[in-house]
Parts: sequence; structure tokens; C-alpha cells
Amino acid sequence: MVKKIGAQTIEFSNNVSIAGFGSIVGKKEAQGPLKDDFDKIEYDMHVGQDTWEDAESKLQTEALSIALEKAKVSAKDIGFLFAGDLLNQCVSSSFGLKDYAIPYLGQYGACSTMVQSLIMAAVMVESKASLLSACVTSSHFCSAERQYRFPLDYGGQRPQSAQWTVTGAGSCILSGEQDDKKPKVLRATVGKIVDLGVKDQNNMGAAMAPAAADTIKMFFEDTNTKETDYDMIYTGDLGKIGSKLLYELLLKEGYDIQSRHKDCGVMIFDDNEFDVHSGGSGCGCCASVLCGHILKKVEKKELKNVLVIATGALLSPVTVQQSKSIPCIAHLVNIVM
Amino acid sequence: MVKKIGAQTIEFSNNVSIAGFGSIVGKKEAQGPLKDDFDKIEYDMHVGQDTWEDAESKLQTEALSIALEKAKVSAKDIGFLFAGDLLNQCVSSSFGLKDYAIPYLGQYGACSTMVQSLIMAAVMVESKASLLSACVTSSHFCSAERQYRFPLDYGGQRPQSAQWTVTGAGSCILSGEQDDKKPKVLRATVGKIVDLGVKDQNNMGAAMAPAAADTIKMFFEDTNTKETDYDMIYTGDLGKIGSKLLYELLLKEGYDIQSRHKDCGVMIFDDNEFDVHSGGSGCGCCASVLCGHILKKVEKKELKNVLVIATGALLSPVTVQQSKSIPCIAHLVNIVM
Repeated sequence: MVKKIGAQTIEFSNNVSIAGFGSIVGKKEAQGPLKDDFDKIEYDMHVGQDTWEDAESKLQTEALSIALEKAKVSAKDIGFLFAGDLLNQCVSSSFGLKDYAIPYLGQYGACSTMVQSLIMAAVMVESKASLLSACVTSSHFCSAERQYRFPLDYGGQRPQSAQWTVTGAGSCILSGEQDDKKPKVLRATVGKIVDLGVKDQNNMGAAMAPAAADTIKMFFEDTNTKETDYDMIYTGDLGKIGSKLLYELLLKEGYDIQSRHKDCGVMIFDDNEFDVHSGGSGCGCCASVLCGHILKKVEKKELKNVLVIATGALLSPVTVQQSKSIPCIAHLVNIVM
Repeated sequence: MVKKIGAQTIEFSNNVSIAGFGSIVGKKEAQGPLKDDFDKIEYDMHVGQDTWEDAESKLQTEALSIALEKAKVSAKDIGFLFAGDLLNQCVSSSFGLKDYAIPYLGQYGACSTMVQSLIMAAVMVESKASLLSACVTSSHFCSAERQYRFPLDYGGQRPQSAQWTVTGAGSCILSGEQDDKKPKVLRATVGKIVDLGVKDQNNMGAAMAPAAADTIKMFFEDTNTKETDYDMIYTGDLGKIGSKLLYELLLKEGYDIQSRHKDCGVMIFDDNEFDVHSGGSGCGCCASVLCGHILKKVEKKELKNVLVIATGALLSPVTVQQSKSIPCIAHLVNIVM
């Protein structure tokens, strides 16, 4: 039984373990500081496919395949599959995962989709709807650039506040069987949509930081804990600018997270990397860093109690053209060992 | 605790009741045979807004408002809100629902989103993650036409197999409190993605029928029941062509549903209605007919045991341009009184 604690937070029993997790990234991500953490690196941006969209689908197929293998289970054992991505109508998920023939529930929370999917999969396992559930999310620089910005060949300039969509995917298999050697999902906070009126689509970090601050604050209040209770606090892809803003917003609430905070978007790329600017972004950013780096550290007990907060900007190119603000959301999971 | 029965089906206790449900439709839908069933009719296609997208958002706002009022609860009592729509990045949901400030989990299953959201909300209630959860989905003819097909002013011709996107929305409030006067969600089957290679985006019914047949067959097998055990079997929006195909596919499996089957897309429009062709479609089709017509019949005990199967075509305009097939999905809920 899932336990509701406080306004937005739920708690799982000790039995929701992450039985397997897999990550795959592209060549630019493989040149960054986390290069040795990822399970697989694709040096071909087309991943052997004809289109960028199919390439991204293939990343999802592979991430799930790695996670299944590491969890030592087969696709037919998985009760429910939660997945999503940034492409219109989430087609990299539906095309990438259709051959697995697993009961499928598409999720959309923009770059927060990985944590959202993890929460839903954990609820399914905890509620006994299935013994095993899976989640996958992805993004691809080329498919995202074409859809959200400009044709790649155009070579558009980007302001320093812009972020670089990560080419990558991550997948987790959640299990209801107790296993002390595996990281566990202990608590989760589902975010509200927060919209402070930011309209600059080239500064998503600034738009998303208030949503992250709101969810983190709610989690601390709901659980009656504070920043010093956790070994690390990871955000999905606020980037450099959004991270600074998050520190300021949380300081106003009495929480000083800076010394124990890292942002997946800042971690994944080398600081001197060409054109990355404020950091990485995309559904594949948090997913690949979570499943490549963070969960490995937890499994090795280098970290025993971490928070992962993935943020999403719920805009579309049409709402940007219509000069609308950018509603944002952030979902949180507390992972323990 | 959610009970898993069979490969794809879950069963809820007797306590997941639909405490309130609301529907809103546009003027064309209000001219159809179900006109007296809907809670609210919007004769202004702009719903008082500047854009079609904002108009669709407003339909979501209103549908949830009606459902909350009928359930006699306020937004702050709702634990989790599940919603989705057909627009890129599901913006009619995020913009239409942001002011409610309810923990939000965006869903994407194309036209199957209403039943998917209902299943997720039921799982949250049954697992005790919240006492109350809500779901909303919508579609709007004008925002869908612009995004998926042609500018409205172009007046493009449509083949007879095409369907007409419903302007409408529906919302349900699910409650964990026992109430014998309210319809209950008893069982649900989560569908697998089914892709038989259909590529004609103007014949979605044909593409979606195999997914509907697969989910219905799985439900019958998982529950050890058959078509005659149910008062009515409603599909979301297969339209006339898809419905016929569904009968054929299920007959091959030994199930003859025709005499007890209706399709929301066929029900909502008058047969002689200009340009409707094969019937209605869109996330708002199943949602408005479910929350306007079906649930009212169940609440009045005119029907005591029904199946609602919403189907979704998981394509995008880009995958159509790339000559790809149309992967489809269908989710089922068994609603009883």
C-alpha cells in the first residue's frame, strides 16, 4: 500500500527496488566527464537508422534492453511499461518500444518524464498491480533541434542561457521483490504546475527553477526533513543558470542546498564543450545520468540517500509563437540504499 | 491493493467510485443525438479565447470544474490529476489545468488517453496514494485540424474513411470512499501497442481496430468472461469502418459483440451531419460521451456492467510524412453499478 505523507508526497514500503537500470548516450555525451558511467555509447548519430526520429526510438529500444538484461528478466515478465519523450505525440517511445509487447502507458512531463515514469512504475509495483514495471525516456539532439528550433543545416546561433539537448536514454526496471543489493525508491513527490510568467524559451533553466524549488520545499515539509538529511540532491536539467536560481529560491525558504547539489545537465558535458552553454537538457539527460551515474553510485553505497528532481517545461513551439508563458513542473524521487 | 488478474488486467476493490463526472462539447456535437446528455455546450468555437489552443484549454478547465462541483469536492482535495490531449506537448492540458495547482501527471495515449487516465487515477485511489484523484482529456476540431491536417481556411477534402475531431472534454473524480449511488471502476486492462502496418492516416478506425480487438480479447481471457456478461461494450472512436472491422476480428476469436456494441465516435454525431464521414474522434470524443452519456446511464442503473475501450493511434504528422505505419493502443475499463 502506498502511504500518503503530507500534501504531495507518497511513501513506498522498503520493497520497491530498482532491479536493473541501463543507459545509452551519443558521442558528444561520451566525451564528457561521465563517459565511463554509461552502459553503451553510440558514435553514429543515426544509430544505424534512416531518420533522427528512428535513431531516438532505437535509443529507447536499447536502454530498455540493457535494463532488462541487468535485471535478469525478460520483457514478458514486465507488467507495465511507462515511457515518454519530447517528440510530438511521443513517437520515439511508441515506435521504439512497440516490439516489446508490454502493456504500455505513455507519459508526458517534458524533461521531468523520467522521474514521473519512475513514480508511476513504483506505484504499480507497490500496489501489487505488477511484480515488475519498467520505465524508459529519451531525447536526441537532432530530432529535438529540428522540432523545437531550426533545421540543423541552418546553424542557428544560440544565446548563452540556452541548453543542449542530450542524445541519450535511460531505463529502470522496478521490482517488488526485496533485494538488499539494489537501490530502492522510498518516497516521491508529484509536482504541481508552476508558472511565474517566464517567456524566454532560450532560458528554460530560469523557467523551471521555481517548479524545482516548489517540489523540493514540499518534499522537505511533507517528510519533515531538510537538505542535510540527504547525501546528494540531483536536479534533472536546470543547467548553470537554473541551478543558481534554485539556490536563491530555496535560500529564501531556509534551505541551503548548494554544497550537496548537482545538476545532471551540468554534469554530463565538459565545461569547455563547444556550444553547450548553460548545460544539457531533454528527457534523455536526467534519464541517462540517473541510470548511468547516480544509481551506480547508490548501488556501490557511495551514496545512501539521494533526491532526484527532474524538471519539465510544458511549452510547445506553438505556445512560444503565441507569446505565452512557460508552465513548468518538477517531480522528485528519494532513492535509498 | 490492486489485484493483478491475468496477463494485462487489474482488479480494484469495490471502493473506487466515480464520485463526479463532467462533460462539455461544442456546437456541432450539441446538434447530435446525445445533445441532452452533455453538462455544458459551448456555441462559441473560441470559448471566449484568442486562439484555438486556448479554447481547448478552456474546455479542460470547465470539464474539471463541472466534475469537481458534481463530486462536491474542491481542487485542493484532489491528490493527483491525470490529463492529456492531442496537441503537441499536450499543452491544452498544461495550460488549461495549471491554475488548479493539483499535483499533475501528464498522460499520452492519443485518443485512448481518457481511459488511460481513468486507470491511473483508479490505481492511485486503490493504492491509498490519495483518497481522491481526477482525470481530464480534451480535443478541439480547429486545433487538431491545424496541427494534424490543413489550415481551416484551406477547406481540404476528406475521404469517407476520415473522422471528425470532437470539440469537447470530459472529466472524472475518483474516490476511495464507498458510495453505492455512484458508478465504480471494477477492472481495467492496459493495452499493448499493436501495429499491423496500416499507413493511411485518413483511416484511423482501420488502424485502431486490431488494438481494440487485442485488448478486449485479453480482458475476456484474463477475467474468464465473455461478451454476453456485459450490458454494453463501448469503444472510443473507431468510427463506422473501424467498428465493422472490430466485429470481424473478434468473431474470428469467437466473440460476437455487434448487438451490444456502440462506438462513441458513431454515437456523438448525427448520421446526416455534414462532413463527419466515418464518425467522431479525438481525446474529447470518448471523454465527453463517457462523462456525458455512458456514466449517466450507469448511475441511473439503466446499465449495470459496461466495458469502455478507448483506442489511440500513436502516430505523428512527422511519422506520416516518413511513410511509417500507425502503431495503435487500446485501454479498457469495466464500470459497474
